[in-house]
Amino acid sequence: MLEGIEHVALAVSDLDVAIRHHREVWGLEVARRERVEDQGIEEATLPLGAAALQLIAPTSPASTVARFLERRGEGLHHVAYEVADVRAALERLRALGVALVDEEPRRGGGGDLVAFVHPRGNHGLLVELVQRSGDPSA
Amino acid sequence: MLEGIEHVALAVSDLDVAIRHHREVWGLEVARRERVEDQGIEEATLPLGAAALQLIAPTSPASTVARFLERRGEGLHHVAYEVADVRAALERLRALGVALVDEEPRRGGGGDLVAFVHPRGNHGLLVELVQRSGDPSA
Repeated sequence: MLEGIEHVALAVSDLDVAIRHHREVWGLEVARRERVEDQGIEEATLPLGAAALQLIAPTSPASTVARFLERRGEGLHHVAYEVADVRAALERLRALGVALVDEEPRRGGGGDLVAFVHPRGNHGLLVELVQRSGDPSA
Repeated sequence: MLEGIEHVALAVSDLDVAIRHHREVWGLEVARRERVEDQGIEEATLPLGAAALQLIAPTSPASTVARFLERRGEGLHHVAYEVADVRAALERLRALGVALVDEEPRRGGGGDLVAFVHPRGNHGLLVELVQRSGDPSA
């Protein structure tokens, strides 16, 4: 069902500061930077081997990432699993009774088709399913 | 400096329950299961593409993972970056003034040489550096 880890997302307060830190300390560079308005965030994608580290910062105090930062401070936010077919994955999860955040896929960063799975009932892990936009079944 | 994401670790209360969940829901299988006594944990490694999901559960109430679970509940615990040479990586981080948990590498699961970098000063992200035991420079 899962092709691999597409990215790991770190919630940060200031995107520029976090980008500079990851360049200077870890030698990671930004491949893509983009605002995702319906999530109320700006994200920077830093390739890391076959996957990526994604830095996400709130652009609105109402976004779930802003609330995450208030509650917990900066830290790991979610893991994205790559799937070939996000609709089929949601269907399977629904049949298993797994709690979903998104009942239908939506457009994420880079035009990928994405859907979030609720951490409740998944051992506290917020999962983003990602079907890459280059996928022929998209 | 970094070769890729080696694994993402999820702290869980009951390893057997979490393994069953990840098999049934995500189709992931355990490739290795082992107690790491000096961390006070038992870990299960579930390959996931080029990386792995690692489930970690405390074997002692004094372990840092037990304290993590008490404070935050189940959830993402750390990310492991693969490096070719963990000693060289620690040297570089020390020169940059990055706070380390381990000043010297130690043996982790699977005999890998590992060292943890403190989340303080790394945007709240606990990083494990992993030099795989099969690496010729080990």
